[in-house]
Amino acid sequence: MISSKSPALRLVKWQHETAGIWTLFAGKPESLTPLGVAGGSPLLNAIRELGEPKGAAPPAASIETVHGRIVVSLPIDDKEALFGLGLQFHRVNHRGRTRTLRVNSDPKEDTGETHAPVPLLISSRGYGMLVDSARIVSIYCGSTVRADSKNPPDLRDRGRDPLWEATPRSEAIEIVIPSPGAKLYYFAGPTPLDAVRRYVLFCGGGALPPRWGLGFWHRVRTDATDHAAAAEAQEYRKRDFPCDVIGLEPGWHSSSYPCTYEWGADRFPHPAAFVEQMTSLGFHVNLWEHPYVSPRASVYPALQPYSGSHTVWGGLAPDYTVPEAQQLLARQHDREHVSIGVSGYKLDECDGSELTGASWMFPAHASYPSGHDGEQVRQVYGLAMQRLTTELFRRRDRRTYGLVRAGNAGGAPLPYVLYSDLYDHRQYVRALCNSGFSGLLWTPEIRSASSAEDWARRMQTVCLSPLAMLNGWSDGTHPWSFPEVEPVVRKYLKLRMRLMPYLYSAFARYHFEGTPPFRPMALEPGMHNSEIDDQYMVGDSLLVAPLFAGQRSREVHLPPGAWIEFETGERAEGGQAVTVTPGIERIPIFVRNGGIVPLMPARDNAPHGGERVDLEILHFGDADGRFRLYDDDGETFAYERGAFQWRTIEITAKNGELARKISAPEPGKPSTYGEIAWTRRG
Amino acid sequence: MISSKSPALRLVKWQHETAGIWTLFAGKPESLTPLGVAGGSPLLNAIRELGEPKGAAPPAASIETVHGRIVVSLPIDDKEALFGLGLQFHRVNHRGRTRTLRVNSDPKEDTGETHAPVPLLISSRGYGMLVDSARIVSIYCGSTVRADSKNPPDLRDRGRDPLWEATPRSEAIEIVIPSPGAKLYYFAGPTPLDAVRRYVLFCGGGALPPRWGLGFWHRVRTDATDHAAAAEAQEYRKRDFPCDVIGLEPGWHSSSYPCTYEWGADRFPHPAAFVEQMTSLGFHVNLWEHPYVSPRASVYPALQPYSGSHTVWGGLAPDYTVPEAQQLLARQHDREHVSIGVSGYKLDECDGSELTGASWMFPAHASYPSGHDGEQVRQVYGLAMQRLTTELFRRRDRRTYGLVRAGNAGGAPLPYVLYSDLYDHRQYVRALCNSGFSGLLWTPEIRSASSAEDWARRMQTVCLSPLAMLNGWSDGTHPWSFPEVEPVVRKYLKLRMRLMPYLYSAFARYHFEGTPPFRPMALEPGMHNSEIDDQYMVGDSLLVAPLFAGQRSREVHLPPGAWIEFETGERAEGGQAVTVTPGIERIPIFVRNGGIVPLMPARDNAPHGGERVDLEILHFGDADGRFRLYDDDGETFAYERGAFQWRTIEITAKNGELARKISAPEPGKPSTYGEIAWTRRG
Repeated sequence: MISSKSPALRLVKWQHETAGIWTLFAGKPESLTPLGVAGGSPLLNAIRELGEPKGAAPPAASIETVHGRIVVSLPIDDKEALFGLGLQFHRVNHRGRTRTLRVNSDPKEDTGETHAPVPLLISSRGYGMLVDSARIVSIYCGSTVRADSKNPPDLRDRGRDPLWEATPRSEAIEIVIPSPGAKLYYFAGPTPLDAVRRYVLFCGGGALPPRWGLGFWHRVRTDATDHAAAAEAQEYRKRDFPCDVIGLEPGWHSSSYPCTYEWGADRFPHPAAFVEQMTSLGFHVNLWEHPYVSPRASVYPALQPYSGSHTVWGGLAPDYTVPEAQQLLARQHDREHVSIGVSGYKLDECDGSELTGASWMFPAHASYPSGHDGEQVRQVYGLAMQRLTTELFRRRDRRTYGLVRAGNAGGAPLPYVLYSDLYDHRQYVRALCNSGFSGLLWTPEIRSASSAEDWARRMQTVCLSPLAMLNGWSDGTHPWSFPEVEPVVRKYLKLRMRLMPYLYSAFARYHFEGTPPFRPMALEPGMHNSEIDDQYMVGDSLLVAPLFAGQRSREVHLPPGAWIEFETGERAEGGQAVTVTPGIERIPIFVRNGGIVPLMPARDNAPHGGERVDLEILHFGDADGRFRLYDDDGETFAYERGAFQWRTIEITAKNGELARKISAPEPGKPSTYGEIAWTRRG
Repeated sequence: MISSKSPALRLVKWQHETAGIWTLFAGKPESLTPLGVAGGSPLLNAIRELGEPKGAAPPAASIETVHGRIVVSLPIDDKEALFGLGLQFHRVNHRGRTRTLRVNSDPKEDTGETHAPVPLLISSRGYGMLVDSARIVSIYCGSTVRADSKNPPDLRDRGRDPLWEATPRSEAIEIVIPSPGAKLYYFAGPTPLDAVRRYVLFCGGGALPPRWGLGFWHRVRTDATDHAAAAEAQEYRKRDFPCDVIGLEPGWHSSSYPCTYEWGADRFPHPAAFVEQMTSLGFHVNLWEHPYVSPRASVYPALQPYSGSHTVWGGLAPDYTVPEAQQLLARQHDREHVSIGVSGYKLDECDGSELTGASWMFPAHASYPSGHDGEQVRQVYGLAMQRLTTELFRRRDRRTYGLVRAGNAGGAPLPYVLYSDLYDHRQYVRALCNSGFSGLLWTPEIRSASSAEDWARRMQTVCLSPLAMLNGWSDGTHPWSFPEVEPVVRKYLKLRMRLMPYLYSAFARYHFEGTPPFRPMALEPGMHNSEIDDQYMVGDSLLVAPLFAGQRSREVHLPPGAWIEFETGERAEGGQAVTVTPGIERIPIFVRNGGIVPLMPARDNAPHGGERVDLEILHFGDADGRFRLYDDDGETFAYERGAFQWRTIEITAKNGELARKISAPEPGKPSTYGEIAWTRRG
């Protein structure tokens, strides 16, 4: 009965793919993978520009098969922190934890499950590793110790040794792929940020949203009519709050849960006229939907043969991994939404849940016409919907920017921002930090608040995030819902607008260089083991440290060097934690000495293609500074055809004075900025 | 690319096994199964006595294989409630939910994972269904709808129809077994309680604990010495609190986490003398342990070849599914514990966790000498430890009663009571209800409290549970820790002792007839769809309705008929909910009209074999009543060799008077009860 044989264990070397990127086949990969569904093409030139780091080849991996699972084992150092794994809400460093990377809409516990559980680890030692599998991969992040370990942890006694640990030190990561196999990718550094860059560039570069996407967004109540939505939008103008996008929630459909994708004639009798009116008022229209097709939808009969074995809320769950299904939905969407000027979508419910609440997803054992099962389709459903809708707009040479509740590996180029129903402000900020490890964008959207203070604090955070949105679908809230903080909220909506040149340039670097616009502190130089989860970087210069309701003061960990408070101009020495006690009217933002922040006026909405705005170049402190200002038409894919430019802003300290310089616009290239003013602070 | 073929779907008939029990092979079962590990032999005669219900044959099951998973589908009715699935903390009726039946020590969310996730459904329609698999089985309890459904749910629109449901009505259960296959069992009714009985009897009958196991238990602080433990025990006597068992926590080992299983010479220099002293004082000694073997343990080298590929806290995780490993631990335990008088074990940590806290279990992909993997071994680890230790005592013809943190199917005959660290009083009562569906025993053990009220309320509950225990391992609490409620606590510890004849008879019926001693209301006649989760039955006559700290009153749902409050004798009409407002000094207990509750004196501890105690027969109300009083030596397995008896107590109402009758003891059989007194109440 006893067999002392271990399963066959093989030592497998990584294959060099391109500069700083290696690959490895663990078993035989399945045909459906997240990278394949996302569909991006690696930006090989940009990757090569990152260079070929010396001595960066990854160590060989041990691979074995245990009862049909592929197990890949890789060595880790004692001090190594393991970041990433997608949109994680509960911790930054996963070292010592077992992570189950299942797509799930209720990530209430610290298991690894979340809306976008990207199987990409970023190591503090400066490398990244991706498992390109549409299966639910488990990663034991140094949470297991093999009996045959050459370097086992010290033996301790919980009752008598205060150094005892529930998870003893482990010398390996173990990756479990419950399938015939998967392809793995290794992204070299030398820094963790370089590894992230390589990953993002390999996915096709980060998303470059249209300029209007970086304005303020408002979602109206789910039962809003065309008149109500337009009135709500106009109220923004009357009250002097910027706003670029009005989002419609489920009630715009003739029937939702499941969806028809058709305008309800009772609330939106004249969709084209409505969208045209909104456009003329300076608003883009975003439509909520989910993937489950109502039997009342005209597209239902055509989609039926391309759908899974199980329904959701009585609707089809189409196999959007197959072109026929994609095309059917795309044609309907193009005809009834995109062609009349709709600017994008909010893709809800593509994650599914069994955790709490009711169970409502198609099951893992569902079967699909493509031959895939429910586990696979669910893991990539959000990606598939993102790609389908992105291409819809690309075909019309229009950029989109939208919301989505599920993602996976490869999603960086898709112009979608994740959101959640969890609504814990601290977790939302932690997710914003973590999103930067995994090529994800995340909005800590605001819906309601427990107090005016909570409202203001959440507004400050969301205005310094990838997508600044108020979602009033349920509560019918507006920015002015708490009158006692209305001026504070207005100030931050306007700051959001003013920051657009800075933010848009940060996104351009995301696209062209792979540098995430919103980043955790662990991606900053000298902080690679940092587990700070309540402050984050926006671009290269701004460090944002939100306060949470009830907090009067907080510590801010400043990286080495001098820092200047964005608003007050006060100076603080870095390389330490400083305590700040801002009132409700201020969120702490620190700028590096020498930091440059180009601003535009606090307009009602973003400049459209060809429009010109003034530029105010804020520069901070007394050190040399440099900033690359990106410009293009802000709306189309002309930048892919060369119609873009980078302008260099330079501050040079010389003989106690600061010289200011901005390169001239390139002739023949889109040029958004007119008058230039300079302001020094701190 | 599109293949319209569904996976092969087969309609499979159940095979008749014995009276009211059918079986079905779904695929090819694996060799390791919970029933096999538990090792009980079906009590076929008792099963046959339940009869062969007419028309009870189960409907054929649909079976398909989807990507290596076996999927079994069975029809359900619209009104059918689905109970059971082991020690569930979050709900009673799983209809509409997806349950993942993984063993897990942190069942903080309503997913199905728990310490003892028994894959046994009990239907309100009066049948049970068991999946005998050591894999993590998922059960979609009417939470999925197939696209080819002949009877799909009504189509509704969430936004416009208040009857919309997140989980629409489904006409089927889907069971997913991630393995080559499993054997399924169908237990007929006609009532849900009959289905439970059939299951328990098929497992080998319920556990019959020794009498002392039903006394009060106290666990000392983990760092207690022999002197401290003895002093703690004697304090019970001084303060007039009953107590039968003193439990030692991790600190008794020379080293724990991982365990040596050897007495620490610093705290327990003379183990045999200590146990002898405790025995002479009337206490049994219970030892805490977990399955992970310290390199400092003398048994370590011998166990090493029989252990898994991964360590836990630096200790071996032996393969206790193989006889060699079992025997090695059993020999050591017998020599160093059982032979000197230790009475049993508390088997901790055999469940494992990745949910919150630190990750610390061997992984699912661990490999074992038996050829099984970590998923399988973990699912049955608690069962294996229970069986190993039970047999240790059986070989010495001594019954044991102990604690365990993990269980699975088949465990009913193993004399172990589950416990948890969750410590939510409401969840603990819900678990007590749910335990009755699955042949499990559960203790809502008390450790600490937020107030004297909380302390008293928890004490009242635990004294009316399968194992009445205070666990002071961490907080060093005693029953008198809250002096303001000391008299209340004393009263309930004494009530526990007094109830011993009633409780012991209820356990005997668990053993011989399969009737759980602690049961949810849904197992009562006429309440088969009840989701009541805050009151439960103890034996046939007592209905216990705990209060929770902060509650001044509560509703109690009384089944049809007249009921009498146990203490006050007040009468209430059943078939309705009544509101009770007991003070802190009382937990509501209702007795059926005609109910008979035999009591013994509130002694310090349980009678030992051959000892005699007086009997007070309490009978309630004015209806006829009947009770079968079980008796045996209370300590050995002589009852299996015929040395037991049932005495019949009868109350007969005639001409407005009540005639009382108890059958004489059988000559030559153990006889515990001497003087008999009768008391009528209500």
